[in-house]
Amino acid sequence: MSGETTDLIHPVILCGGSGTRLWPASRESFPKQFIPLAEAHRSSFQATAARVTNSNVFARPTVITANDARFIVAEQLAQAGLAADILLEPARRDSAAAVAIAALHAAAHQPDALVLILAADHVVGDDDAFAAAVQACSLGAKAGHIMTLGIMPTSPATAYGYIQPGDPLPGAAGQAGARVVQRFLEKPDAARAEGLIAEGALWNSGYFLFRADVILDEMRRHAPAVLAAAQASLSAAVRDLDFLRLDTDAFLASPQISLDYAVMEHTDRAAVLPVSFPWSDIGTWGALWEVSQQDANGNAVRGRVALQGTRNSLVHSEGELLTTVVGLDDVVVVATSDAVLVTSRQRGGEVKTLVEQLRARSEPEADAHRLMYRPWGSYQRIDIGSRFQVKRITVKPGARLSLQKHYHRAEHWVVVRGTAEVTVDERVSLVHENEAIYLPIGCVHRLTNPGKIPLELIEVQVGSYTGEDDIIRIEDVYGR
Amino acid sequence: MSGETTDLIHPVILCGGSGTRLWPASRESFPKQFIPLAEAHRSSFQATAARVTNSNVFARPTVITANDARFIVAEQLAQAGLAADILLEPARRDSAAAVAIAALHAAAHQPDALVLILAADHVVGDDDAFAAAVQACSLGAKAGHIMTLGIMPTSPATAYGYIQPGDPLPGAAGQAGARVVQRFLEKPDAARAEGLIAEGALWNSGYFLFRADVILDEMRRHAPAVLAAAQASLSAAVRDLDFLRLDTDAFLASPQISLDYAVMEHTDRAAVLPVSFPWSDIGTWGALWEVSQQDANGNAVRGRVALQGTRNSLVHSEGELLTTVVGLDDVVVVATSDAVLVTSRQRGGEVKTLVEQLRARSEPEADAHRLMYRPWGSYQRIDIGSRFQVKRITVKPGARLSLQKHYHRAEHWVVVRGTAEVTVDERVSLVHENEAIYLPIGCVHRLTNPGKIPLELIEVQVGSYTGEDDIIRIEDVYGR
Repeated sequence: MSGETTDLIHPVILCGGSGTRLWPASRESFPKQFIPLAEAHRSSFQATAARVTNSNVFARPTVITANDARFIVAEQLAQAGLAADILLEPARRDSAAAVAIAALHAAAHQPDALVLILAADHVVGDDDAFAAAVQACSLGAKAGHIMTLGIMPTSPATAYGYIQPGDPLPGAAGQAGARVVQRFLEKPDAARAEGLIAEGALWNSGYFLFRADVILDEMRRHAPAVLAAAQASLSAAVRDLDFLRLDTDAFLASPQISLDYAVMEHTDRAAVLPVSFPWSDIGTWGALWEVSQQDANGNAVRGRVALQGTRNSLVHSEGELLTTVVGLDDVVVVATSDAVLVTSRQRGGEVKTLVEQLRARSEPEADAHRLMYRPWGSYQRIDIGSRFQVKRITVKPGARLSLQKHYHRAEHWVVVRGTAEVTVDERVSLVHENEAIYLPIGCVHRLTNPGKIPLELIEVQVGSYTGEDDIIRIEDVYGR
Repeated sequence: MSGETTDLIHPVILCGGSGTRLWPASRESFPKQFIPLAEAHRSSFQATAARVTNSNVFARPTVITANDARFIVAEQLAQAGLAADILLEPARRDSAAAVAIAALHAAAHQPDALVLILAADHVVGDDDAFAAAVQACSLGAKAGHIMTLGIMPTSPATAYGYIQPGDPLPGAAGQAGARVVQRFLEKPDAARAEGLIAEGALWNSGYFLFRADVILDEMRRHAPAVLAAAQASLSAAVRDLDFLRLDTDAFLASPQISLDYAVMEHTDRAAVLPVSFPWSDIGTWGALWEVSQQDANGNAVRGRVALQGTRNSLVHSEGELLTTVVGLDDVVVVATSDAVLVTSRQRGGEVKTLVEQLRARSEPEADAHRLMYRPWGSYQRIDIGSRFQVKRITVKPGARLSLQKHYHRAEHWVVVRGTAEVTVDERVSLVHENEAIYLPIGCVHRLTNPGKIPLELIEVQVGSYTGEDDIIRIEDVYGR
């Protein structure tokens, strides 16, 4: 639709968060927006992407994400049968830079394109109400307003910023409920939150809908350094496989600032549509409990869980772990294959500090998951000893690992599902289910899944050092 | 020392408990007395056995344990460099039957032998004070009293029975502090416990010291069915490797009753020595917290643990798991490789009910540990999929598994430490570190560790069924 004028809305999903307050399920290496938390079978990123698929309303979405998350984004889109442009940020620069890039990207096709900014880690409880709200906002956006969604508060939350609405907008947008923004307010304390709600203030959701030309005008005025960095990094962007990689140096020149601080608090074009559908930014485990399905005792559980004398608690148990709680109320228990968190619904915000403490202690579980995603599939350590390590490796159909060698370990591969094509030095062989192959120390080897189903194999590494950094890559289809 | 008269005390360690209230660390397959809980590097069974090694005071100890625990007992004694006679009970019949057998076993050598009954799952905080108390009790025991240790209460515990002491015993025992037992009291409620303490009552520790002929007399009078079953099962006992296996049918004829109910509450020979050393029966996780070393915040931790804003809590983390607690007081968190328990110090007694619930749901974690001990070593499942399973197997030096075959799975063994002697059908070969061997479905095979260090190997099973019951044993050195 290059150059073509259309009323379609360009959804832009901001997907760069790290979600450390939902540790240990969410970690730097696989943050919360990619984990099935509020729903059992899809992540909030997948739910967000699915929310903007109506092609009568929405153009092809754009996802802006961190470089390290690119293969996860691609994989989760493919899993959900969705397509999107994927823009890679070389670093975190908060939302203003990402929004500027999103607006420039849309404006390249149509200067007054409507752009909808969505956060990948929000939960929306009513897709129809959300769609109706977006339609209502588009009226105001077309008229030149920077529209936001203001959520009708259900509690005096101190974790959200608030918006004080003013007079109705003129015209159709105003008739649809949209109002001028009188003021953006920082996260309040509990007493102030009560007062704000009494005054009719709304939660600042972080959803925005605007014309590209309008936001770019306001950025030129209020955040020129952000805009300049965005322009430079986008025009020097390079395509890398299916991704558009923003130029690093240009991008790093942007100030690290949110759209609220950079533009919304200064512009006179801000408007808000009050909405009342269930919504959460799942900022803490306690917030997730609030939007989760609860049983008769108020417990929200996921995975293998057994409770006794326990109420109003969130228990999240991953994999095969059996997680039990006896005689406690209002607790949060999150158990993963390598780390366990126990806290209260109220104190869950302090998990961020805990993760900082773990980083300071160099605990690997602070940021890395045991299950590691790679462009070719995933691997997971299942055992480790003083001179050995065992991994389960899954390779997607058609995928291939890098051509590599190790200086300090030999490897035994036992195929337990599918078929592997294994290159060892000059020789290529097919290894089938229930067959094994040996890779001596120093051999140059490569693993490919030539088949139509995932390949699973058990790798037993034996040697004096089995760290990830003893991988000497000789060639890699993923450009690593 | 057959027939020889001696003043040596015969220690008898009762080691038959299942300890479900300390689940998930303690399970039927490996109960609490065998786990390092109060101490980091030895179990309470090992600490108990070490407490009676002074050969000037004690004869060779006898351990009475369940059949299923026999290899654990032997292994833990060997680890600690200790020796003992090991008597195997075919079923649980509570303490009266075990004490009768212990007395008969000692009386066979010397009718008036002094017998000391110790529970394997108790924690004693002062070995010297314990030794002195045993010496003091032996005075009363020689004079024909059935001596018990009465612990000076440190709190109005409702988990213990109480003993009301009366007048001092006559003679040297009385001078050493021993007193007639006025009354044994059931576990009280909290208010009653306060009253009992005010009246000078003592905790009933379950330690007994008596002459074999005295307790047998009292049993003949008050518990003849128990005594008859004990006599029959001991005289028909058979030696099996290093164990003395009591006759099953004869033993099962015994009533299931404690020594307290069967004898102590009826005899007029009961006496008690008040003692004040730290002691606990570690009946719950909360009780373990009380006798554990605590940091400045009152936290007792074991394993990889990180705490923030947490006080007066017990956190026990096994293996590689990282266990964290944020913003909670008075909690108990126990994390093992396959199950997690979160409770409070106060409500920990309800864990027993939880385990019953898990059994009713047929959850394997209710009773079985992931790490399974066998006479030849141990194994641990490290991964499982739809058509495969991976185990880490450790074989002791000189040990050998049964000659066996499987109908539904092939196995790949990769040796990661030590040397294996592997028999596959007619062929025997040595497999060294970093070598692998394949065992096709249906082959008759056997694994031996011919070396001087433990053998560790990774076993990858591939097949349509990988359950433990697909082991067809053709020959077994351990008579299984």
